[in-house]
Amino acid sequence: MERVLIKEIPRFIGKKVKVSGWVNSFRDHGKVFFVNLRDRSGLLQIVFWGNIYKKAKELRPEWVVSIEGEISKRPQGTENKEMETGEIEMRAEKLEILSRAEELPIDLTKKELELKLNTLLDNRPLTIRHQKTQAIFRVAKTILDAYRKIMKDLDFFEIKTPKIIGAASEGGANFFTLDYFGKKAFLAQSPQFYKQICIGAFERVFEIGPVFRKEPHFTTRHLNEYISMDAEMGFISGIEDIMAELEKVINYIFQKIKEESKRELQIFGINDLKIPKKIPRLKLKEAKEKIKNKYKYEVPEDTDIDPKGEKLIGRLAKEEYNSDFIFLTHYPKKDRPFYTMPSKNNSQETESFDLIFLGTEIVTGSQRIHDFKMLVENIKKWKLDPKDFDFYLQAFKYGLPPHGGWGMGLERLVYKVLNLSTIKKVSLFPRDVKRLVP
Amino acid sequence: MERVLIKEIPRFIGKKVKVSGWVNSFRDHGKVFFVNLRDRSGLLQIVFWGNIYKKAKELRPEWVVSIEGEISKRPQGTENKEMETGEIEMRAEKLEILSRAEELPIDLTKKELELKLNTLLDNRPLTIRHQKTQAIFRVAKTILDAYRKIMKDLDFFEIKTPKIIGAASEGGANFFTLDYFGKKAFLAQSPQFYKQICIGAFERVFEIGPVFRKEPHFTTRHLNEYISMDAEMGFISGIEDIMAELEKVINYIFQKIKEESKRELQIFGINDLKIPKKIPRLKLKEAKEKIKNKYKYEVPEDTDIDPKGEKLIGRLAKEEYNSDFIFLTHYPKKDRPFYTMPSKNNSQETESFDLIFLGTEIVTGSQRIHDFKMLVENIKKWKLDPKDFDFYLQAFKYGLPPHGGWGMGLERLVYKVLNLSTIKKVSLFPRDVKRLVP
Repeated sequence: MERVLIKEIPRFIGKKVKVSGWVNSFRDHGKVFFVNLRDRSGLLQIVFWGNIYKKAKELRPEWVVSIEGEISKRPQGTENKEMETGEIEMRAEKLEILSRAEELPIDLTKKELELKLNTLLDNRPLTIRHQKTQAIFRVAKTILDAYRKIMKDLDFFEIKTPKIIGAASEGGANFFTLDYFGKKAFLAQSPQFYKQICIGAFERVFEIGPVFRKEPHFTTRHLNEYISMDAEMGFISGIEDIMAELEKVINYIFQKIKEESKRELQIFGINDLKIPKKIPRLKLKEAKEKIKNKYKYEVPEDTDIDPKGEKLIGRLAKEEYNSDFIFLTHYPKKDRPFYTMPSKNNSQETESFDLIFLGTEIVTGSQRIHDFKMLVENIKKWKLDPKDFDFYLQAFKYGLPPHGGWGMGLERLVYKVLNLSTIKKVSLFPRDVKRLVP
Repeated sequence: MERVLIKEIPRFIGKKVKVSGWVNSFRDHGKVFFVNLRDRSGLLQIVFWGNIYKKAKELRPEWVVSIEGEISKRPQGTENKEMETGEIEMRAEKLEILSRAEELPIDLTKKELELKLNTLLDNRPLTIRHQKTQAIFRVAKTILDAYRKIMKDLDFFEIKTPKIIGAASEGGANFFTLDYFGKKAFLAQSPQFYKQICIGAFERVFEIGPVFRKEPHFTTRHLNEYISMDAEMGFISGIEDIMAELEKVINYIFQKIKEESKRELQIFGINDLKIPKKIPRLKLKEAKEKIKNKYKYEVPEDTDIDPKGEKLIGRLAKEEYNSDFIFLTHYPKKDRPFYTMPSKNNSQETESFDLIFLGTEIVTGSQRIHDFKMLVENIKKWKLDPKDFDFYLQAFKYGLPPHGGWGMGLERLVYKVLNLSTIKKVSLFPRDVKRLVP
């Protein structure tokens, strides 16, 4: 008999079918044994009585089974409104045990797992089976699909660039290093150089791939390996062109989250996710002055903006522009990498931006220097050796148009959209300073 | 004035437009200067005469420009049938130079680059601008899109798993190692363990991501970093279920290549790409006997099958089954990793397969052991320590259904489809034993 997915079961009332999945929970009522069976599509109540009771009553949570039986409406008064298939059940006739499970250290049937973060992550093989954990990755999937779709609609070409690289793209700090057949190599912090080089062939490119940062952070906003959604576009007249394109991307992603992840938003109690249209822009310098005047907070001088500052910028965006989003522009030269285009009117500023969503940076972008000589000069000013960047410089030597782009962290976005306590929950198997396993 | 893409230009005859791109080639006829301008969508002839001639005549290959002018039909007899826009041209009125280029070391205007492999790859920032090089990556893009589409249609869930891992999945050979905040870590050779763990949550998963192999190969079929298209599916009854699903995937991908990469196939002279339906299956042992009898070739005893053997299997598939594809099944236990399901009837064989396309392996797959105790036993038999696999084993301890899956190399597939001389041409920035840059 062919297996039927649980979500299809309501079409089979009065018929015999086979379902397969995990024992999500059970109740033993003496001569009747109830199982809530879980498959990838939903939950179904299964009733075992008569001869099959004896075999069924050894079932325990997470045992994997296939069950054949007849689907019927539940007796009046026994419906379960909390279950999507709460009005029907299966009367089991045949039970096949595919895999047994040991006693669980965690109760997966509760609505909230309520575990300490370490317990949650140490037990990933189990905790990813929980409906609320799964919901996080369903939102991530929606974002991945939406990003690819809108990027293609905007005529960006998908590229795959190497993650093992020979030159550290921003001077070598915070890179993981490895031995590559006797040579020193790095894990890419971003596809920065490669996406710029590809402008020469495809004009507009995007990449979704892992990036690696050896940053000894202990925050709720950082991962040491994460998925970066990158873009780079040629023939721009300035950062306004980049931000305009990014606005379309963000708008589309949020539309899709609202359409396709309704249930997941509900599970996390997110009722007011707003789809941004025109996002307000503010120069970083002005933004800092505003929060100083309005909230009496001064951003420390040794940083472009600190987390508390970002949070207040988020508040400012809400109070002054009624927006969950705000672009901060024109970051100081000293806080941006050497390839960032300096501003024409103010040589200490750059043609750069961050996109702040609910008080946290979710995108970083800029116009890049496209002039070969200017780029070589800048590399020297940053006390780096142009020789180390020969392959990168080659693209400029032979003509690149004015261009720029952005990097957007997938996990960061999900973390903010679902208002989670930490970004670590958004990675199936997160990597942080202490965590290399599972 | 808004820029118009060259492919849109035929709609603008008699109108003034702006185009932007690279000088692909030029001819100076004294008072008239011709440029073939290249953008991401095509080539267009631009004519400079009159006042603008003087400024135009300094233009050289790969200079980046924006040009405004009027589109017209070319004078009769001057059409170029080899160009898609060969019947029209632009009479330039305004020329803006966006970026200059130094003299090129390579002639990008030739139909064939005809470079040594090292020259081709050392000059990637230039050579990826060549139409024939770009065509390779357009086919790769078609495959990526097709794989994602069919996997979603088959209800596989997209996952992203870590590339920095704490345990070497197959015993530690051929792994790149790195220091991870004081701990020894590895770069993932495949998402094997993680995709199996995810079966517990999503039943069917797929991933497209980089994998890293420290194999000191000097062949035309290997890269040390490549893009793997992985899949894993639960609730199977055996490898036949996996191969049946893979057949659908391969069939769809080849359909899409034929539909969407027509021009690219033409460029590479591939006229007879066949879309496979039912792919023949042959036990490896039988296949070896057949090529021994038929082609008098005996596969060396220290390998499951060598490249020459694969080639002959390809020939056999063609001659005996009229197929470009063939599944080889039931590889010996000693040649497959510890998690491979042994065959019931023959404990020295495994429930495994390779898919051979035109004499080269493009997919490896198998049913996996899903029983916790059997898996622990097997780890021990392989002289490995189950403790090192605690996190992986956890998934099995708490119930996994019978499952299996495959890994398929993106670059390998393109290499075979386009009948290229080496797989290295299929990576934008390939990594091999000697190549870490660009």
